[in-house]
Amino acid sequence: MKVDMLIRGCMILTMNRKREVIDSGLIAIRDGSLQYVGGEEGAPHFDAEKTIEAQGKIAMPGLINCHTHAPMSLLRGIAEDKDLNTWLRETIWPLEAKLKPEDIYYGTLLSCLEMIKNGVTCFADMYFHEDMVAKAVKEAGLRAVLAPGIIEAGRPMWGRLLFMGAIRTVKRLKGYADGRITMQLGPHAVYSCTPKLLRMVRKAASKLKVGIHIHLAESIDEAEEVRSKYGRGEVELLSDMGFLGPDVLAAHCIHITHEDMKILARHGVKVSYNPIANMKLATGIPNVNDMIKLGITVGLGTDGPASNNSLDIFETMKVGALLQKVRAGDPRTLPVRRVLEMATIMGAEVLGLSEVVGSLEAGKKADLILLNLKRPHLTPNHNIYANLVYSARGSDVDTTIVDGRILMEDGEVKTLDEEYVIKKCGEVASDLISR
Amino acid sequence: MKVDMLIRGCMILTMNRKREVIDSGLIAIRDGSLQYVGGEEGAPHFDAEKTIEAQGKIAMPGLINCHTHAPMSLLRGIAEDKDLNTWLRETIWPLEAKLKPEDIYYGTLLSCLEMIKNGVTCFADMYFHEDMVAKAVKEAGLRAVLAPGIIEAGRPMWGRLLFMGAIRTVKRLKGYADGRITMQLGPHAVYSCTPKLLRMVRKAASKLKVGIHIHLAESIDEAEEVRSKYGRGEVELLSDMGFLGPDVLAAHCIHITHEDMKILARHGVKVSYNPIANMKLATGIPNVNDMIKLGITVGLGTDGPASNNSLDIFETMKVGALLQKVRAGDPRTLPVRRVLEMATIMGAEVLGLSEVVGSLEAGKKADLILLNLKRPHLTPNHNIYANLVYSARGSDVDTTIVDGRILMEDGEVKTLDEEYVIKKCGEVASDLISR
Repeated sequence: MKVDMLIRGCMILTMNRKREVIDSGLIAIRDGSLQYVGGEEGAPHFDAEKTIEAQGKIAMPGLINCHTHAPMSLLRGIAEDKDLNTWLRETIWPLEAKLKPEDIYYGTLLSCLEMIKNGVTCFADMYFHEDMVAKAVKEAGLRAVLAPGIIEAGRPMWGRLLFMGAIRTVKRLKGYADGRITMQLGPHAVYSCTPKLLRMVRKAASKLKVGIHIHLAESIDEAEEVRSKYGRGEVELLSDMGFLGPDVLAAHCIHITHEDMKILARHGVKVSYNPIANMKLATGIPNVNDMIKLGITVGLGTDGPASNNSLDIFETMKVGALLQKVRAGDPRTLPVRRVLEMATIMGAEVLGLSEVVGSLEAGKKADLILLNLKRPHLTPNHNIYANLVYSARGSDVDTTIVDGRILMEDGEVKTLDEEYVIKKCGEVASDLISR
Repeated sequence: MKVDMLIRGCMILTMNRKREVIDSGLIAIRDGSLQYVGGEEGAPHFDAEKTIEAQGKIAMPGLINCHTHAPMSLLRGIAEDKDLNTWLRETIWPLEAKLKPEDIYYGTLLSCLEMIKNGVTCFADMYFHEDMVAKAVKEAGLRAVLAPGIIEAGRPMWGRLLFMGAIRTVKRLKGYADGRITMQLGPHAVYSCTPKLLRMVRKAASKLKVGIHIHLAESIDEAEEVRSKYGRGEVELLSDMGFLGPDVLAAHCIHITHEDMKILARHGVKVSYNPIANMKLATGIPNVNDMIKLGITVGLGTDGPASNNSLDIFETMKVGALLQKVRAGDPRTLPVRRVLEMATIMGAEVLGLSEVVGSLEAGKKADLILLNLKRPHLTPNHNIYANLVYSARGSDVDTTIVDGRILMEDGEVKTLDEEYVIKKCGEVASDLISR
């Protein structure tokens, strides 16, 4: 059979239903999809346009970043070691007010470059000017779920304008970049959007058949503000207004009760766990272990590169696992296989893409990465799951493939001019802060 | 003036007393020491055997790992997501009983390779057969402070034998590898050594003029065991027996009181903070912020590669800073400059080497690393300290120099055959677990 690409001789971490790990495997790709994933021995014969000899490497599903604000790479390092409120109000929001659409494009390009190099093949973004984010994603070749941000913060007219704009953007970008981009609506948070606006968003999302991406219970201040204003917690409030559903992606979920978790579980709400940003801003530690026990699907997110300060899901896997162990006071919490599930197949489910990506099995899109295992820090290989979670780094990724297209091979990015993007984005960032 | 090596055109993070950062700097190295560190403009003229053109890079002091068990790389990933007691008793100790001196040598070689690649130029080790560790360190070209381990664990004869052996090893290895190796005595912990043995160690260390490296208050179980046995906490017990002093390096210090911290500060005891292992084994979070406020010198350690599972001090800087923010509930805790101090000059002080290494200034040994700043995740460069702590990875290190000798240049390790070490150590590890 004729196929476009063959990858052979590698270990394969399938993350399929049986969680099979294949020692010496073969992957065949045709028309952007996986045609065959299995052992080399006994595999059908394929004629391929291109063959990657991958002995000594491991193939695994591309990693999924469930919560970020990609354009914020331009603000990386601009305000450090500050609390969330000061950070947002004194530095981030004033600078964001000066952002031009073109900045959004370049900031996203820089983030896409970093994600390709670190083996992230799909990310969920919430920001303004998502059309510019989409343009960068299209050029980079990544897959993304984009949520135009809607925020009110005491200015209803502004909220209304952003809402109308978001709907136009969602309609315009649906199916953009050969279908690699799907859309959501992105109401910022309960404390920054009124119930009226949130109800409008819910109605529009259902009508447009797109999901919703929202920040939920990130800081104790916001949780208390909402409670004193509405006499209920954020989760209860959203539940009461009929906002919650399986198409809702809630980022953070730190300051919620066990009862809240049950409500989220009942509605099939998905959660993004963003351990590094939660630690960096000291907003608290979500109880991911209990959420998963209650049946909530939890993926991993980096949050924006200005509050992390990187876009590396390998790092997020390790820190995310460690943080839950500390929280529980029990090192058995969030074991390595579960963490890899969160970064791949559960992440895909969080983004409504589990039929499309998140595991390597025939029929799914060919979104995968190759890591070089011949590294001192990956030696010996007593336990491949442990090595991937606790020892591997984004920099071990040498090949990144999305939709069957090679975005990086042997460390060389194919879709973007790395040197140009780095130079240009450094200039754009300098210009931004001097405005 | 004739020198051996010039490095020019790079940014320099000196970590000198004024914490100067030089934009376009020059470094001259002669006879293993720094001859000049300063701006390129106005620098004296040097004739050099070798010149490294380092435009677009940053030079900084080599990172210091204050607590590890290097040979344990062979056990990386062998037992995951277990509590400290189960991990030690069911897997680690039985396997360690099977270790041959040759295994120790290869395990250390693997760890040295990983450290060179991640920019660690000096590490403090505690293990058995430290003569084999020393052999590997000599070949790798690193600097190290080695503490032959002494443990009793209910078997006084065994403890006595290890004590005698440790003293012989200390005498034999003092000044080994052109003085790059210094020695300490390594009594394992208060719960595993009797007061009698600890007193003997203290006396011997003073006589031999070497320091002491000990685990202190790592787990709540051990802390309680000691208290119920001796009616006092570990710190108080050690203080009462005259064990503490400025030459004592205490690893962990998690389960101690504020009063204990004052005792440690009064005696000038140094502390190694090992955030990743503490999280992974869920042993707790030390109050590093208060220790530093009380004047205790705290460095960073990875702990052994079987409980981390890496030897990357860049990762330790980031996670260590984040963990203190979470602990305090305050994102201003342990700001970026302090973290870099802990990984360099404070680390050197912890190991009694602050006159020798830890900063880039004329007269000190030339232990330094170069990082390539032209990376997407290090762009833009609004704040070099933040970029180094929160965004840089060990894999950004492209050149590692110790004692003026290049151990790695442009990512190529010069002192060890990387491919061979990886292959051989994989075999040694497989053989070990099949014994």
